[in-house]
Amino acid sequence: MREVAIIGTSVTKCGELWETSFRELIVEAGIEAIQDAGIEGKEINAMYIGAMSTGSFIGQEHISSLALELSGLNDLYIPATRIEAGDASGGVALHQGYIAVASGLYDFVIVGGAEKTTDTVGGETTEILSSMSDREWEAFFGATFPGLYALMARYHMHHHGTISEQLAKVAVKNHYNGSLNPKALYRKEISVETVLTSSMVADPLHLFDCSPITDGAAALVLCPLDKAKEYTDTPIKIVASSQSSDTLSLCRRKSLDSLLATKKAADKAYKKAGYGPSHIDVAEVHDCFTIAEIMAIEDLGFVKKGEGGKAMDDKLTTLDGAIPINPSGGLKARGHPLGATGISQAHEIVLQLRGKADKRQIDEARVGLCHNVGGSGGTAVVHLLEAI
Amino acid sequence: MREVAIIGTSVTKCGELWETSFRELIVEAGIEAIQDAGIEGKEINAMYIGAMSTGSFIGQEHISSLALELSGLNDLYIPATRIEAGDASGGVALHQGYIAVASGLYDFVIVGGAEKTTDTVGGETTEILSSMSDREWEAFFGATFPGLYALMARYHMHHHGTISEQLAKVAVKNHYNGSLNPKALYRKEISVETVLTSSMVADPLHLFDCSPITDGAAALVLCPLDKAKEYTDTPIKIVASSQSSDTLSLCRRKSLDSLLATKKAADKAYKKAGYGPSHIDVAEVHDCFTIAEIMAIEDLGFVKKGEGGKAMDDKLTTLDGAIPINPSGGLKARGHPLGATGISQAHEIVLQLRGKADKRQIDEARVGLCHNVGGSGGTAVVHLLEAI
Repeated sequence: MREVAIIGTSVTKCGELWETSFRELIVEAGIEAIQDAGIEGKEINAMYIGAMSTGSFIGQEHISSLALELSGLNDLYIPATRIEAGDASGGVALHQGYIAVASGLYDFVIVGGAEKTTDTVGGETTEILSSMSDREWEAFFGATFPGLYALMARYHMHHHGTISEQLAKVAVKNHYNGSLNPKALYRKEISVETVLTSSMVADPLHLFDCSPITDGAAALVLCPLDKAKEYTDTPIKIVASSQSSDTLSLCRRKSLDSLLATKKAADKAYKKAGYGPSHIDVAEVHDCFTIAEIMAIEDLGFVKKGEGGKAMDDKLTTLDGAIPINPSGGLKARGHPLGATGISQAHEIVLQLRGKADKRQIDEARVGLCHNVGGSGGTAVVHLLEAI
Repeated sequence: MREVAIIGTSVTKCGELWETSFRELIVEAGIEAIQDAGIEGKEINAMYIGAMSTGSFIGQEHISSLALELSGLNDLYIPATRIEAGDASGGVALHQGYIAVASGLYDFVIVGGAEKTTDTVGGETTEILSSMSDREWEAFFGATFPGLYALMARYHMHHHGTISEQLAKVAVKNHYNGSLNPKALYRKEISVETVLTSSMVADPLHLFDCSPITDGAAALVLCPLDKAKEYTDTPIKIVASSQSSDTLSLCRRKSLDSLLATKKAADKAYKKAGYGPSHIDVAEVHDCFTIAEIMAIEDLGFVKKGEGGKAMDDKLTTLDGAIPINPSGGLKARGHPLGATGISQAHEIVLQLRGKADKRQIDEARVGLCHNVGGSGGTAVVHLLEAI
């Protein structure tokens, strides 16, 4: 397998983009990534696009062909492939794009993610989101994602002494980071009190413990590492790309305070890289709810199991902390455009490793991690990226 | 890239399976393929599953994780990935599985396809099917798939003199073949008159020119060719696996009497194999409508452009013809379970190359072709398989 690099990246503004269609989001992200890579469209050999539920949101499946058409690349007759893995669709698309280049089959691959969630043709948004949980054993009985993550939060509190203030500190940190990110949906700082006095959605998760419904798109251009220097002075090497799956239903998992798919994907990634979490300078993790970030930093090995809450008290994960987490604002504040989220995470890490993250730049960031989860943990993807 | 073989295969009964859920279809196909391969579940390194619109049909996305759970393979924490490319989802999933093994990343990969279409939660079936056409420029204006293929049929008739009787002969042949296939939805022979006197759906396509709404699933087990002989005496080599995309919308295509994505995918496959269509002993092609089979045998090079209709008069494509097409009954008579179709086609070719196709066996079939199309031609996948 060849080594693979990211040479181009882009992300659209995240938000409730009433004036922007799914189609416009795809085109904006795709063209900017190609321009950023400094390649011509005709050099692209394949396209992968992650999206969670375009059928239900906008009544459109088969978006791979649509994305190729809209990008004006259809004359190339290259393969365009859509990946769906709930809100890990983007991360899994990146994994597939990585395999396609690493295998030697294709040289230049564009990998995108997109979702238009705020106006839907197929029912109410929360209902559509439930389709990435177990429809028959969870959603039909009324369990929504806040409810499923609330179960994990309550378990974590009971077994590890985690408290609501610690969950709130995740949101406070991520809103602060988001305030420094012009592409973020939420750009206002909040306080612990803001979180704790917000409406209770699913006890113990308040409104501000939850990531928002978001529209957005993002894209990356990949190529073999040995060609990357021809296109950019700052290629970002994909040191490891690993994906693991677990049961779809929470009730059949072996753990409620860990996402084992995250642990397994991270273990594989660290093994491939030859180093562990202490080597990571910055990470974007899947904070669909505040408890998810706490479990993620434990499962990824940044802190021991059960010490994620304490890490918030100790400010370990702030921009100037020992392991800065979600400098982009994360799903919580940058926004969570489902199929685009995994690609947006990689976009942020690429900016950080290029030293181009502006006010939220982590000093001397050389190694970054991206962690994308589907549903309540049925899929997890971990990427390790390095500036070379 | 390593050479890849198919060592296990299965297909469920195709039909309006009111008593069988999507979940049961997945499990039946997956377990039978693993048993057919003679491997243990724990040997599997990755799973790919193609499905077109599970979100709209059954309210369930993220089916990769679900399939892993239902197959009892979740303890392996292996990557499970869903592919969506309209009714080419199965073919594209096979292509991705092929890349995964050929790259050296994984040894044993199970590739499946499944669709449950006959009872839906997300609206009327024809409406859901329209989501794999261009929603904004085709479906919203009332164009359904029979309408889009009717445009191609009318164009083909006008430019090449193709007549309704020739279209009807495709259906007659495929119903005959289906009558020999115990897994087929339609197992009754029909006549040209049956087709021509059936209701007009979209002029010139009658009801019997159209493939049916179908439930079903299918699965294959892939491994490196050099390991295949340890598991089976009759490994089937994947000589070529190629995928091409074109515009989603028919109105932006460069041709109305060809699917250029098919031509491009076939060209790549023949180039990889080092031989052309005259070398093929049997093919399963994407006959979602009778005109689609006529265009397919032209685009794949079995006959010249415009001579597909005449090939029906000359009985070139019958079981004992020069190039037998759709011995399974094809989408028309075996049935068209959307995401499962591409895998079902490969299943039939594997049976043919193993010499296990019973009453529909093609004599001395050594080289077979599978051709799977998404929508009106936005995606096409061609596989060349060989008995070794």
